[in-house]
Amino acid sequence: MIGVYDSGLGGLSVLRHLVERLPTRDFVYLGDTGRAPYGGRDSQTLLDFAEQCVERLFEEGCGLVVVACNTVSCVALRHLQRRYAGLGSARRVLGVAIPAAENAVAVSEGHVGILATQRTVDSGTFVVEIGKLGPQRVTQRAAPLLAPIVEEGWETTEIARLAVERYLVDLEGVDTILLGCTHYPFLLPALRAATTARVIDPAPFVADRLADWLDRHPEFDEPGQGRQLFLCSGRPDDFRTRGARFLGRPLPTVAHVAEEGGRLVHRDRVVVPRGQVLR
Amino acid sequence: MIGVYDSGLGGLSVLRHLVERLPTRDFVYLGDTGRAPYGGRDSQTLLDFAEQCVERLFEEGCGLVVVACNTVSCVALRHLQRRYAGLGSARRVLGVAIPAAENAVAVSEGHVGILATQRTVDSGTFVVEIGKLGPQRVTQRAAPLLAPIVEEGWETTEIARLAVERYLVDLEGVDTILLGCTHYPFLLPALRAATTARVIDPAPFVADRLADWLDRHPEFDEPGQGRQLFLCSGRPDDFRTRGARFLGRPLPTVAHVAEEGGRLVHRDRVVVPRGQVLR
Repeated sequence: MIGVYDSGLGGLSVLRHLVERLPTRDFVYLGDTGRAPYGGRDSQTLLDFAEQCVERLFEEGCGLVVVACNTVSCVALRHLQRRYAGLGSARRVLGVAIPAAENAVAVSEGHVGILATQRTVDSGTFVVEIGKLGPQRVTQRAAPLLAPIVEEGWETTEIARLAVERYLVDLEGVDTILLGCTHYPFLLPALRAATTARVIDPAPFVADRLADWLDRHPEFDEPGQGRQLFLCSGRPDDFRTRGARFLGRPLPTVAHVAEEGGRLVHRDRVVVPRGQVLR
Repeated sequence: MIGVYDSGLGGLSVLRHLVERLPTRDFVYLGDTGRAPYGGRDSQTLLDFAEQCVERLFEEGCGLVVVACNTVSCVALRHLQRRYAGLGSARRVLGVAIPAAENAVAVSEGHVGILATQRTVDSGTFVVEIGKLGPQRVTQRAAPLLAPIVEEGWETTEIARLAVERYLVDLEGVDTILLGCTHYPFLLPALRAATTARVIDPAPFVADRLADWLDRHPEFDEPGQGRQLFLCSGRPDDFRTRGARFLGRPLPTVAHVAEEGGRLVHRDRVVVPRGQVLR
């Protein structure tokens, strides 16, 4: 059972590629939709949330957790690895930022552009990781409007086209644009229409690297029955309805988890407060 | 000294009207920019943040705190009032949602449209408050892209025009549109170009109601020297630079506050983590 963790729905676009590449593996996806977006959170809060989510996935029986969220991968991965996946541990936590950097370095002729959230850009992780791998120059651009545009389902509108155009102005001269947020692949048509640079969704490459890794580390997961389970901390109905677009097909039942004493636990009933909240 | 509390910068557009209407009063503005946006937060977290911010403003010497954020006013105001401003307390907490509802009822001929964040819409507070005051019908529309558009400074672009147009489709037939988020007044030109309905920024009315209230309750604040102090939980430099647009003029020094043991305390140094965060 492989855990896939994301702050919201975007990671479903990564899961889609993982399932395609590894059809016999079992996956549990956890979307922390009740507390997304993570973008504006301070680092300590982000680490707390990430720990809770990763621990939930371990409790589900995962020996390996893939952090599908770029923000968490760029900010908290090393912390998660030190805490849960030290030498001798039977668990591993992998991220998407390093394979994404590898992908960019493999295809770029000299100047990589990164489109990502502000938090990911601020972390500098893509710049550091690409710097370790190749001589490419890196230019980053935070694109805070793109995820909300995709969340609204407006990726084929004139609004998307114009927003993409504005963000790309700052990436002029790059030969390769790496999509550093799992929402952005939905904007590939708009992006490709707006630039002659190569635009990469790293998810297929991430899936290839995971397949390699599993070959080399068979002790952390074994082939199963190709099942997928879904958990979320927000409203499961919303997750199910809105998630289908990200996964590329309808979702089965989605289970609800909620924070209780610093842990994410299964809950039968979703309590959605309306009106003035008192306590 | 009057406290003005907002999750971010938007409340500065309210402060602007308060200062204009009450030029001899002293104000302390607290923008919780380090933890904004509040939109996706669960209610308990939102109440925690609101308590910390209001307590900080009381400690600054405010007898009265105005919650300038619509989301907090719609979700947490009653809680704050019960906790801090019961009968016999020397403190008061006022919000913007009720005066905004009064404003809409005063001008609408029969059908009010509300543009607001998802969290504000979900709370149903505007529907309830308008229902108490008049026979008007109310239609709400969550407009999640509008605040990010204003944050980007894109309010006069074609992107803003098209987004506004899309959101207004669901408000067809209303005679009055109430702006239920402090970011939206920046979109007034785009909104007024897109609809024949009356579009109201309630901030001037909120300022009038506050002036009335102060006349009737002189014990909670007294005229000062027309000073304004600014606090934020994010980066003060960012706040100062980006805030000028919301306030309509340059900001003086901005002090930094940060969470420490469940309280917001003054801090000299802003620690902005870069790269992988460990703990």
